[in-house]
Amino acid sequence: MKEFNLIKRFFTEQVTNRKDVVLGIGDDCALISPPERQHIAITTDTLVSGVHFPVNTSPRAIGHKSIAVNLSDLAAMGAEPAWVSLALTLPEFNEQWLTEFCAGLFELCEYYNIQLIGGDTTQGPLSITVTAQGLVPIDTPLRRSGAKAGDWVYVTGELGDAALALKHLQDEVVIESSFVEPILTKLDFPKPRVLAGQILREYASSAIDLSDGLISDLGHICHSSGVGANIVLDALPLSNILVDTLGLEQAIELALAGGDDYELLFTVSEDNKVGMETVLANAGIPLTCIGQMNTSEKITTTMDNKAISINVKGFEHFS
Amino acid sequence: MKEFNLIKRFFTEQVTNRKDVVLGIGDDCALISPPERQHIAITTDTLVSGVHFPVNTSPRAIGHKSIAVNLSDLAAMGAEPAWVSLALTLPEFNEQWLTEFCAGLFELCEYYNIQLIGGDTTQGPLSITVTAQGLVPIDTPLRRSGAKAGDWVYVTGELGDAALALKHLQDEVVIESSFVEPILTKLDFPKPRVLAGQILREYASSAIDLSDGLISDLGHICHSSGVGANIVLDALPLSNILVDTLGLEQAIELALAGGDDYELLFTVSEDNKVGMETVLANAGIPLTCIGQMNTSEKITTTMDNKAISINVKGFEHFS
Repeated sequence: MKEFNLIKRFFTEQVTNRKDVVLGIGDDCALISPPERQHIAITTDTLVSGVHFPVNTSPRAIGHKSIAVNLSDLAAMGAEPAWVSLALTLPEFNEQWLTEFCAGLFELCEYYNIQLIGGDTTQGPLSITVTAQGLVPIDTPLRRSGAKAGDWVYVTGELGDAALALKHLQDEVVIESSFVEPILTKLDFPKPRVLAGQILREYASSAIDLSDGLISDLGHICHSSGVGANIVLDALPLSNILVDTLGLEQAIELALAGGDDYELLFTVSEDNKVGMETVLANAGIPLTCIGQMNTSEKITTTMDNKAISINVKGFEHFS
Repeated sequence: MKEFNLIKRFFTEQVTNRKDVVLGIGDDCALISPPERQHIAITTDTLVSGVHFPVNTSPRAIGHKSIAVNLSDLAAMGAEPAWVSLALTLPEFNEQWLTEFCAGLFELCEYYNIQLIGGDTTQGPLSITVTAQGLVPIDTPLRRSGAKAGDWVYVTGELGDAALALKHLQDEVVIESSFVEPILTKLDFPKPRVLAGQILREYASSAIDLSDGLISDLGHICHSSGVGANIVLDALPLSNILVDTLGLEQAIELALAGGDDYELLFTVSEDNKVGMETVLANAGIPLTCIGQMNTSEKITTTMDNKAISINVKGFEHFS
């Protein structure tokens, strides 16, 4: 286990040095000095090799993704990312693997001014647990529970591409060669909607990040808010690559149930609709209105203005 | 993975409800409202099955230990435990296993008024990562870096019993049958020195918790503080069971290098010695003075007032 002491070196040479970190890596605990009039948002996500990413995923992508999936949770709360702890379990000491993993991890940390404040390195089957913390001004967090009947349902970005990439890696679909790289980038290097989340604090009535698939995650909002929703399938933001590869029907299915999108799903009242759309457009954040909340307490879908029944994985979470 | 949604139920029925937890389990993030004039201490520890505990360890012990090892880190910082996040990776859904695991985990959380605020449950090889957070009044944390030449070296409790238990489980020693249970309890249900840590904020010049073994962990204090130490082997607090089972020489070896003790190792100046001993005695905390810091920048040991060279695992960390 002597090599595991060396590993610590990989994590102490970081660029980010936040003023609110009183003590970083190297003691029994890290110490932070939390700012006044802010709440701290805390989230934890584990990535297990072969479960949350294919076993042959590049270490740089694993490093990126282990931070990104947590930042996506912070974004869904409207929090500004601040500190992360990393619990890294590795089967063996591999210097090149660690160098690339750290490159992916610190690239994202530096971009968002996040400091790695501690963690644990252990020997075992490859698994990464990150606990990320962020700041939210008091009384303005985005929650899952605030959606009201009549609110409009929005998503950022496009849906289903990451799930398509996974199908490609599992040899379940054939993708045109020029499409492979952009699609794999969507799966391996998701961009958490950190800025969008912070903007939405002022406008959205509820929010969640899309990790399990649209229907499943919308189900959480419906359940927490005690309302239902109708999704207009014609409106779903689908990439040309997704539709060209799978055809419209299967493309919609992936967009509804694929997971791994790490976009934000949120609801906005009629009164806030125009203001929100303007501010997000000015910030360069792509977004699409995909439906409306209602009092039904279930999730329905329409296409060409006709009700259409869907049967997707994840729907059971809600029913 | 549907069963993994059920698992969440095991973690939402807890007794502890802290006022500073604005939002607990159930949204994208937890939200806490940190108190003013306090720093937040943060620590993360991973326990991997077969590495950090034998594969046949009872789930209740695993639940206890996953919290206890983190509380021990908080104690070494003088922090008052407050919130924990749990990342639990399980090979399968096993209701009885989870019930017992939760019993061990929540027993300790309730005792210390700690709230489980979130986490992640995933499928994979058994592994538990806990991130624990605690509160320390500004400017009073215990660090590894404050030891000075002349300071006295202390430990709480007794050393080496957990390592003896591990040897017993690995069939490396034969323990008298009446000794087995108390020894296994030391290994499986370590008692973090939370109260001692908080008291020591006022007295100790440095502190660390004993997880890797006395010499290794003392090495961290020496390294961080830029000093050396001499340990008086005759003074080491050894249980009768340990000495009776192994004889004095091997007992000392385990006390120096065994690990898994989760006692506190700390240094105190001559001026604070009597005050500290009085307050800790009044609090019922067993402690022993085992040596003194010096300017040598290395760790030496003496027995019967004669220098004695030791050769133990972990010593290399420092040299």
